[in-house]
Amino acid sequence: MLPAVDPCTALKRFSGVCPFLRSTSATSLRSFSTQPALASTSVRPGNRLAELAGTQCPLMSAALARRALAAPAIAAPAPNHSRPKSTLAARKSDAAVARGYASIAEVHQDALRKATAAASPKPAPAFVNPASLSSDKSGALAADEAHAPNEVHSEGRPTCALGFAKHRITSFRPGFDYEAFYGSELDKKHQDKSYRYFNNVNRLAAKYPVAHTANKADEVTVHCSNDYLGMGRHPVTLQAIHETLDTYGAGAGGTRNIAGNGAMHLALEAELASLHYKPAALVFSSCYVANVETLSTLGSKLPGCVILSDEMNHASMIQGIRHSRAQKMIFKHNDVADLERKLASLPLETPKIIAFESVYSMSGTVGPIKEICDLAEKYGAITFLDEVHAVGMYGPTGAGVAEHLDFDLNARGGAAGSVADRVDIITGTLGKAYGVVGGYIAGSERFVDMVRSYAPGFIFTTSIPPSTAAGARAAIAYQKEHLGDRQMQQRNVARVKRDLEAIGIPVIPNPSHIVPLLVGNAELAKQASDLLLTKHKLYIQSINFPTVSRGDERLRITPSPLHSDAQLATLVAALDSVWDELGLKRTAAWAAEGGRCGVGMPEGERKDVVNLWTDEQLALRDLEHARDVAAGKAAPDQAGWVASPVVEAATAAVAA
Amino acid sequence: MLPAVDPCTALKRFSGVCPFLRSTSATSLRSFSTQPALASTSVRPGNRLAELAGTQCPLMSAALARRALAAPAIAAPAPNHSRPKSTLAARKSDAAVARGYASIAEVHQDALRKATAAASPKPAPAFVNPASLSSDKSGALAADEAHAPNEVHSEGRPTCALGFAKHRITSFRPGFDYEAFYGSELDKKHQDKSYRYFNNVNRLAAKYPVAHTANKADEVTVHCSNDYLGMGRHPVTLQAIHETLDTYGAGAGGTRNIAGNGAMHLALEAELASLHYKPAALVFSSCYVANVETLSTLGSKLPGCVILSDEMNHASMIQGIRHSRAQKMIFKHNDVADLERKLASLPLETPKIIAFESVYSMSGTVGPIKEICDLAEKYGAITFLDEVHAVGMYGPTGAGVAEHLDFDLNARGGAAGSVADRVDIITGTLGKAYGVVGGYIAGSERFVDMVRSYAPGFIFTTSIPPSTAAGARAAIAYQKEHLGDRQMQQRNVARVKRDLEAIGIPVIPNPSHIVPLLVGNAELAKQASDLLLTKHKLYIQSINFPTVSRGDERLRITPSPLHSDAQLATLVAALDSVWDELGLKRTAAWAAEGGRCGVGMPEGERKDVVNLWTDEQLALRDLEHARDVAAGKAAPDQAGWVASPVVEAATAAVAA
Repeated sequence: MLPAVDPCTALKRFSGVCPFLRSTSATSLRSFSTQPALASTSVRPGNRLAELAGTQCPLMSAALARRALAAPAIAAPAPNHSRPKSTLAARKSDAAVARGYASIAEVHQDALRKATAAASPKPAPAFVNPASLSSDKSGALAADEAHAPNEVHSEGRPTCALGFAKHRITSFRPGFDYEAFYGSELDKKHQDKSYRYFNNVNRLAAKYPVAHTANKADEVTVHCSNDYLGMGRHPVTLQAIHETLDTYGAGAGGTRNIAGNGAMHLALEAELASLHYKPAALVFSSCYVANVETLSTLGSKLPGCVILSDEMNHASMIQGIRHSRAQKMIFKHNDVADLERKLASLPLETPKIIAFESVYSMSGTVGPIKEICDLAEKYGAITFLDEVHAVGMYGPTGAGVAEHLDFDLNARGGAAGSVADRVDIITGTLGKAYGVVGGYIAGSERFVDMVRSYAPGFIFTTSIPPSTAAGARAAIAYQKEHLGDRQMQQRNVARVKRDLEAIGIPVIPNPSHIVPLLVGNAELAKQASDLLLTKHKLYIQSINFPTVSRGDERLRITPSPLHSDAQLATLVAALDSVWDELGLKRTAAWAAEGGRCGVGMPEGERKDVVNLWTDEQLALRDLEHARDVAAGKAAPDQAGWVASPVVEAATAAVAA
Repeated sequence: MLPAVDPCTALKRFSGVCPFLRSTSATSLRSFSTQPALASTSVRPGNRLAELAGTQCPLMSAALARRALAAPAIAAPAPNHSRPKSTLAARKSDAAVARGYASIAEVHQDALRKATAAASPKPAPAFVNPASLSSDKSGALAADEAHAPNEVHSEGRPTCALGFAKHRITSFRPGFDYEAFYGSELDKKHQDKSYRYFNNVNRLAAKYPVAHTANKADEVTVHCSNDYLGMGRHPVTLQAIHETLDTYGAGAGGTRNIAGNGAMHLALEAELASLHYKPAALVFSSCYVANVETLSTLGSKLPGCVILSDEMNHASMIQGIRHSRAQKMIFKHNDVADLERKLASLPLETPKIIAFESVYSMSGTVGPIKEICDLAEKYGAITFLDEVHAVGMYGPTGAGVAEHLDFDLNARGGAAGSVADRVDIITGTLGKAYGVVGGYIAGSERFVDMVRSYAPGFIFTTSIPPSTAAGARAAIAYQKEHLGDRQMQQRNVARVKRDLEAIGIPVIPNPSHIVPLLVGNAELAKQASDLLLTKHKLYIQSINFPTVSRGDERLRITPSPLHSDAQLATLVAALDSVWDELGLKRTAAWAAEGGRCGVGMPEGERKDVVNLWTDEQLALRDLEHARDVAAGKAAPDQAGWVASPVVEAATAAVAA
């Protein structure tokens, strides 16, 4: 038996006596060790290294021949070749058993076994941001829970230069070097700083907006979640899910066509159709899927279709258009004149889809929905409006910006000719303001039925769980009847924007609930995010390429109705500190450079930003009051919500 | 005011006096009624019909002019223009208020209002199979719940020939007629009988495999769910979900990069990597998305990549390959010789992906995984194996067919060189045997990291809820440690196959848990499914184009470990009856025609089918026993599980 040394040491020692090992690179050795033997008819699946040793090496060939005689038909695993039963079970087992690989230099087996047993303790997966891995040991259970993945990932894996397990190559073979290619693609990401490290953030239902990191004892306040209204932790949502879980179980168990269609799905779709003043709606796994499937189905089916797409459209729309292989024309962001020029250049009879968004999630800008409907009707196009970042948050019943534009009319139930009615296709999500998961489309019955009948990503996928459908429906129904969360969100957003602007933090101006802060550099944005997390215990994800263009990197804040005044005050103070500590540009500095992304723009290029929610709308007492005001039966209240004594006192406290 | 008549009657009456109405088709009238007025500068968004009336009609122009003077700036909705608050709220309201549209022939407003108020009660959405809508009124609450969608869909909608609301055209405009196009695409589906009617089936957690239809009192036994092992209702799964819901809320609240990555996601991915003997895994919204994103990312990134695809591959793989725009070569189903010819025709250095499945879901055939690995290693290709219909159900720990092929080796923890180890990429689902929802890939660290870093459908979508991740992880961990469900499923499958074959019902032969019954005609397959549902209270979905080829239509049965002997006996008797009642072909009839899909094939073309699970494996007492047998420490039991007295007695009872 070989002495218990790690593979690197063993390799160095053997290299001293073996000309083959001395002249062969670590990479090649690694490859050989997993590459199958060329004599593939062998009953026993050998590897190239063992084969070379058996046929070329005067020392090893005899040893291996003896071994082969003693071996059973299928390579018997060494006793240590058991993987953990499961990550759950692994925690309970007396001693986790190292996982090894029989074919990796079987002749060095014992050395490997010892080395792997002594492997370094539990590093995080490479892509997890160390900033979100607390070193605090006080929350032992939490750390255990959070570190479970790493136990499996790292267990039994040596981390020496050979890297047998760290980047174990599972099936090296002749021809193209796939692993090297993957590595080079990843290197590109590292080089341009667009490689992403995920933060380990676990949002606590009972403490919204607080989350714990990898360690349960390490709590942070989340300021960038898209659970915009906290419906993900709302009793109405949770109760519907709990009850439906107990009644109908966890999964749908099939596609909508095969055993996966039930009353919960139909009820949710009816709720969505009603929400958007449309005859029909259809639910997908996500709105990413809804957008891809709808645009690719429409674009490929409509004869000679041209899709006109806002240049800032979400990746899902871009992919849907790409997959449709229809002709695509990109118009300038929110530029109605540019869109009209492009529409006018096409024959009236050509089918055309204008694809755009209401609230653009990373900038908070808002699409000119009514004007685009006008153009669509003039030039014979249909409108495809993504309201993902608006549903639940705009309109008297939360149907989105299209509904918001006719606030009074829709408070009373809507009518034909409203903007919401004129938009042909509305897509939305159940996973942001409604707090659950999934996406949908709403439109005419025939349109929805056609997508239902032809879109492969709808047809060939397991439907969402009944409990998901029930939870989303409950959240939608709740928000349909309650103005308060939307108003309080706007109040907090306005406050944060005002307080940040007051100290020169560069808020990218917009009329919505998004508070984007311009940083303009990928590394600095990540540093700012990490500093907020580690020093100030605030989580605000940095937004880098490809989510925004290079040079437009930012922090993106999403104040919710549930953030307290104290939490918002702490946020503003922390940002002030981080801007100082990292020397990030304030608005004046951007102005000195001529401005960017609407920040510090010269007088002439500045655009007036008018909030979607007016002060009068924000002063409405409730939906009943809104109906009465719209009907002329009640007077609007004083629009004093922002300037109220309570808010002012809180603001004064911050300033002090 | 006009008398309260329905719009059809009103139209006929007006046609008698109005030359315009008399000479204009119903379609045109419908169009005009929603088409916006040409004078688009008008403050009030009128419609073309009202505009024509106002400018062309000597009677209406004066009336409309008076009306316009009295109207507010935005078209005031009539009091009845309120939609239901929500489908939940609607049930509680004293009287549901009809939803109408102000612009539809405003001059006929009262007639319309009355007509819509009297609209026929609550038909199902057009695509819901009437067979699953029970007329039993005993379950009033259930019917109410299940019919809630229809209340909204039909409310206030007349169903006369004009069809104002039934197919209300939301935004008619000049140019291409989109609604007519959607209609023609749907007509194609109706004409070739591939239009799908969804059954309303609500699987009951407490009564698996029983479900209720649209009426809660109407219960049916489900024989076609892909919740193969009943893990969707398993206490282990449900408890994990309930607990995580209370801790972390309903939705993830963001993408993996932005606030949507936590300990539950990392732990699930570690569990999956461990399950498949791989260093890394990555979770997606569904395996449809996992397949599309992985194949399209790989296929588009690998330079000059060629994807070799089994002709029976799932739609998700076909779409992924299509979206990659890589060169595609289709090889004959499970034909290793054909695959080798195609591989050999390509340069060794060309990157190649062999994409295939383990269990093909609609036929139950199983891919030659080991042989394909051999070819991949010989020709420098990588293997992409979809184990969606196998995970949880094959292998000592439920990792799938790749694991099953080295059962003994893997019972002891696996080793390099095993088939599972040699496969490069494994994709699977959390929504079938694991009973929840979601999909994943497993493979080398660099490969997974590359997909993580580049696939838009991973990057730009909300991550699965923490509770979904926790539930799936619990189900996987449970099945890793329990052989029993897999064995019992196989026992029930073998029994159903044997009993059906004994009476000549044409089971398409295969070595897996799928029991496909050849019908060979779309209409007959639907009739058989409907008859089973309505007369025998059994739900078995008919499988038609595009899920299977035309002429290969079938019923697809998926016996679970939880189906009782009595339920399986009832199933066999019901199928016997339906085959008689509809005169469906039995095996002998297929044989007389030369056979199809493996049913009734001539002697020479018959393929031997060897079950994946051997009798010896099925007789293992538990995983511990399996390990001991594999290690030679224990003897295998008698393989008497199928021929046991209990089963035989039950079978005899069926036959009697």
